[in-house]
Amino acid sequence: MSIDRLKLRWNGWGWVDAPDVLGEKADAVWDWMGKTFGVDPLPSTPPKPLSEIELPQPKLSSVVVDRLRRMLAPDRVKTDDYERAFHARGQSYHDLLYLRAGRVDTAPDAVIYPISADECLAVVQFAASEHVAMIPYGGGSSVVGGVTAQAGRGQSGAVTMDMTLMDQLLDIDEEALVARVQAGIYGPQLEDALQARGYTLGHYPQSFEFSTLGGWIAPRSAGHQSNRYGTAEEWVVSARLATPKGMWTTEGFPNSAAGPQMRDIVAGSEGALGVITEAEVRLHHMPEVKDYRGYVFPEFAAGVSALREIMQVGLPNAMVRLSDPDETFFYNALDSGGVTTDSPAHFCIMLVGLEGDQTTVDCAREQTKAITKEHGGMHMGEGLGEKWYATRFDTPYLRDPMMDHGLGVDTLETCTRWSNVIPLHDAVCEAITKALDRNAPAPDTRSIVMSHLSHSYADGSSLYFTFAFPQNLDREVQQWTAVKAAASDAITASGGTISHHHGVGTDHLPWLEQEKGPVGMAVLKAIKDEVDPASILNPGKLIAGP
Amino acid sequence: MSIDRLKLRWNGWGWVDAPDVLGEKADAVWDWMGKTFGVDPLPSTPPKPLSEIELPQPKLSSVVVDRLRRMLAPDRVKTDDYERAFHARGQSYHDLLYLRAGRVDTAPDAVIYPISADECLAVVQFAASEHVAMIPYGGGSSVVGGVTAQAGRGQSGAVTMDMTLMDQLLDIDEEALVARVQAGIYGPQLEDALQARGYTLGHYPQSFEFSTLGGWIAPRSAGHQSNRYGTAEEWVVSARLATPKGMWTTEGFPNSAAGPQMRDIVAGSEGALGVITEAEVRLHHMPEVKDYRGYVFPEFAAGVSALREIMQVGLPNAMVRLSDPDETFFYNALDSGGVTTDSPAHFCIMLVGLEGDQTTVDCAREQTKAITKEHGGMHMGEGLGEKWYATRFDTPYLRDPMMDHGLGVDTLETCTRWSNVIPLHDAVCEAITKALDRNAPAPDTRSIVMSHLSHSYADGSSLYFTFAFPQNLDREVQQWTAVKAAASDAITASGGTISHHHGVGTDHLPWLEQEKGPVGMAVLKAIKDEVDPASILNPGKLIAGP
Repeated sequence: MSIDRLKLRWNGWGWVDAPDVLGEKADAVWDWMGKTFGVDPLPSTPPKPLSEIELPQPKLSSVVVDRLRRMLAPDRVKTDDYERAFHARGQSYHDLLYLRAGRVDTAPDAVIYPISADECLAVVQFAASEHVAMIPYGGGSSVVGGVTAQAGRGQSGAVTMDMTLMDQLLDIDEEALVARVQAGIYGPQLEDALQARGYTLGHYPQSFEFSTLGGWIAPRSAGHQSNRYGTAEEWVVSARLATPKGMWTTEGFPNSAAGPQMRDIVAGSEGALGVITEAEVRLHHMPEVKDYRGYVFPEFAAGVSALREIMQVGLPNAMVRLSDPDETFFYNALDSGGVTTDSPAHFCIMLVGLEGDQTTVDCAREQTKAITKEHGGMHMGEGLGEKWYATRFDTPYLRDPMMDHGLGVDTLETCTRWSNVIPLHDAVCEAITKALDRNAPAPDTRSIVMSHLSHSYADGSSLYFTFAFPQNLDREVQQWTAVKAAASDAITASGGTISHHHGVGTDHLPWLEQEKGPVGMAVLKAIKDEVDPASILNPGKLIAGP
Repeated sequence: MSIDRLKLRWNGWGWVDAPDVLGEKADAVWDWMGKTFGVDPLPSTPPKPLSEIELPQPKLSSVVVDRLRRMLAPDRVKTDDYERAFHARGQSYHDLLYLRAGRVDTAPDAVIYPISADECLAVVQFAASEHVAMIPYGGGSSVVGGVTAQAGRGQSGAVTMDMTLMDQLLDIDEEALVARVQAGIYGPQLEDALQARGYTLGHYPQSFEFSTLGGWIAPRSAGHQSNRYGTAEEWVVSARLATPKGMWTTEGFPNSAAGPQMRDIVAGSEGALGVITEAEVRLHHMPEVKDYRGYVFPEFAAGVSALREIMQVGLPNAMVRLSDPDETFFYNALDSGGVTTDSPAHFCIMLVGLEGDQTTVDCAREQTKAITKEHGGMHMGEGLGEKWYATRFDTPYLRDPMMDHGLGVDTLETCTRWSNVIPLHDAVCEAITKALDRNAPAPDTRSIVMSHLSHSYADGSSLYFTFAFPQNLDREVQQWTAVKAAASDAITASGGTISHHHGVGTDHLPWLEQEKGPVGMAVLKAIKDEVDPASILNPGKLIAGP
C-alpha cells in the first residue's frame, strides 16, 4: 500500500496534516463567504473526534473472524476502531454528515487486506457460504454511498475488503500499449510507475490522489482529460474479478463481435458483481505537448454552441471545461480572496486542454480558436489554463473547512444530449435553489448553485453541479436529502442520466429504474443472481438487496 | 421495403440481373484462375433452380399460421416456396453450399412482415407462449449462420420475422446529431434519407447494399470506415427491442455511469435477446473532403508497424487497409485480367482513407505520409484509393460465378493485439493452407490464402482472411468444415477473437466459450433466460439451445 491510512483523514478529504488550501487568503474568504451566504459570522462546527465516538457492536462471530485470519494472515484482518471507522463510509457530503457528527451507525465488522486474487476468491466464496456481506474498497472516495459498509437483510455481518495491498503494475505490452495492473493501486503510484517508462493512462479524476484503479473501473469513472484518454469503460481492456462462482476473466481483445463484451458489464458493476482484482488498461505515450488555455464567452449559450461544434467536428482535445456564469463568478471571487469583482455576471470561462504531438496540438488549437471566435468567444491565453492545471486537485480540500464553518457543499452530475443541455441546466439549478431555500436554516440566508460542462461527446455533454449553502444545523441530513431528491428528480425529468461518472451506489438507486426500464433492471438483477446468488457482494449498491 | 426480393438471388449475392462483375475480362480471368488453382479447364457447376427443389414440410400448425394472419394481415404472412427458400439461410459460403445444391434442409414454416413495434411484440409473445422459434431477419447477409431458420429442441416450428417493412427514418435530432430509425431499413435507403439532409451514418460494411440497420447492430458490424464512424456498438445510442418480457428500451445518453449500459448488451445480441425494432444512431455531417490514397511497403511487417504508429498517434483516419503480399498480388492479378505480374511477392499495398474538414484531412495526410515514409513506405497517390473506393462493393459479386466454376471462396476474420498480429497472420494462413491441402480434390490443385488488416485500434487490429480453392465436389461441406475448424482453432490459439465483426451465429459458437470463460458464458445465458425463458428467439445462435 503506497499510502499510510493513519496519515489520512478518516472523516474527510486527504492528508491529516495538509496545509490550509486557502492559505493566506483564508480570513478574507471566510469573511466573504459569511456575507455571501448571509451567515455572519460563520459558526464553528468542528467534527467529533474518533475517541469520543462509539462504534456499533460487531455482528460477525469470532469463529468467522478467526477463519478469515487463517485464510489471510492475522495482521491483515483488522477490527480496531480506526480501521472500522475509516472504512465505514465513502466521501460523499452525505457520508461526512454522519461521520463528523459521530453517528457511525454502520461500519464493517472487520477489514481485510488480501494480497492475491486467490485470497480474494477464497474469501468471497467463504463469505457467500457464510452469508457475510463483502464490500470491495479501493480508495474509499465514492460520493454516492458506493462503499458503505452495510450487510444485506439476513446477513450475519459485513466485511470490507480493502484492495490497496494489491498495488503492483504487473506488465506492459509495449507494442499494444496495454498494461496489466492490480486493482488496488492508487492513482499517483500507478502514474509514477507508468511515467517512469514513458507511458500514461491519463486518468485523472478529481479523486486521483486517493482513489484506485479498481475504484475507477467499478463506477465508470471519468478523468479530467477523458476526451482524450477515455472514461474508465473506454480504457479498460479486460478485467479479472473474484466472484462467488469463481474467477471471472473478461475478454481482452482490441474489439470483438463475439457477443456482448463482458468488460462492458464489469465497468459499472460497482463491486456488486465481483471484486476486481486486476485489469488491463490502454496506455498512451507521454504527450509531447500539453497546451491548456482559456477562452471567455459573453454568455453560456454561446459557450455551449462552441463546445458542441468542437466535439462534432471531432477536434482531438483532451479536455474542454465550460463554466456557467455562476461558476465563473464564484471561482473568480474565491481566487481573488473574496474580493467580489464587478465582472458582468453573464461571462463564461472555457478551458481547453490539448495534449499530444506538436503537429496535432497546433492544428487543433488553431481550429479551436477559429470555432470559439465564430461563437463570440475571446482567446485569453495560457494563464487561466495553467492556473487550473496547477491547482486542479485542490477543490475537494475546501469541503472540510467549509463544514467546519457550518457550510455545506455538494456536487452532482449528469449527462444529456445537446438539445437538453441548457433546459436541464436551468431546471436543475432552479430545483436545487428552491430546495435549498425551502430547507434554509433562516429566511435571510443564501446559497450558491453553479455548474460546468466537462466531459463532452458529439451527441451531448456531462453537466456537473456544485452547490454551497449554510447548513441547517441538526437537520443537515434532511436538508441534504431534500436537495438531492429535488436535483435528481429534475435531472431525470429533463432527460439526463442519474450519473455521468459518479456511479449509482446507494444514493442514486431510487432513480435507476427510470432510465433502465423494467427489462433493463431485470437483466441487471439476472446477472447479479447468476454471479452472486447470495447477494453478499456490496449489498444495496447498484442493485436493491433481496 | 425498398428492395423487391424477387429481384434478388435467393441463393447468392445481389441482383438477379446484375451484370458480370468481371466484365470483358471474364474469359482471361477464368483462364488464369484455372491455371492458378491447377484445375484446367474449370468445371461448370451451376446451382439447382428452385423449381427443382423440394422444401421441408412445414411443421407449424395451421391454427398458428391463421392466428399470425389475424395478428398481422393475411398478405404479411407468407408460406410460399420462394419466401421460405429466400429466408432459409444467410449468405455464408457454407449456406450457399446447401442452397445451391438444393439441400434446403431447413426453412421457416412462415415468413412474417410486421409493420410496427406493437406487432413485433405481440408476435414475439405469442411465439413464446406457443413455443415457436422466431428468427429476426433484416437483409439476411449473415455469414456465420446468424439467420438460419431453425427451431430449437421441442419447438413446434420456426417463423422468420422479416423486418424490412419497418424501414423509416423517424426523426433527426439535428443538435445532437442523433437519428431515430426503424431497424428494417436497408443501407442505401438509410444513407439516401440521411444524405438528403446533409448527414451520414458512415456505416458501409461489405454487405451495405443488402443489409439493414438492425442487422448491423445485432452482430456488432463494422463498416469500411469504422475508424472514423465507429463500429455498430460505438454508433448505436439506444435500441428498442421486442422481447417475450415486453418492450425493452435501452438508455440513450451520450454516456452514463449508471451501471452497465444495456446497449452494450444489445449490440452483439444477434436476435437472441429480442427483435430490434428501432435504434438511435450517431450521425456525422457529410464530410467536406474524402481523400483515399495508396502507399506501398516493401514487406508486410513494415506496413504493420506503420499502421500501428498511425493508430497509436491517433491520426483521425476513416480507414486504413493493409493487404498482405498475397492479397496485394491477387488483386493486382485480378485487376490486370489475369495477367500475372512479376511484382516481387513481398510488396504490400496500404490504402488510407481520410474524411472530414479540409484542415484536419490535410494535417492527417501529411502526418500519414511522414509516418509511412519512416517505415519504408512509398506514397502512390490517389489512383489506388479512388479505384478501391469506386469498386468497394464488387468483391461479393465474384463468389457466385466462382462457385459456378467449381471454385470455393470464403472469408473469416479476427482481431488481436499488435504483438500477436504477425504470428496470428502466419499461423492462420498456414492452418488454412494445410487444411485446404488435406481436403483438396486432387493432389496437384492449389489454393490461395490472403489477408488484410482493416479495422485498427491503438492496441491492435482486425485481420481479414480470404481463401479461394478448387471445390472438392460432393464433399464441399466436409471440405469447408475442416478448413473453418482449422482456421478457428488457429485464431483462438493465437490470441484472436473468433470474430471482429461477423458475429457468432451458429458457425462460431463452438469457439465462444474459449474467450468468454465459464462465468462469462453463464452471464450470457442468465441474460437470455431472463428475457427469453422459452428460448424461442433465434435458437442456436450466440447461445446454445436448451
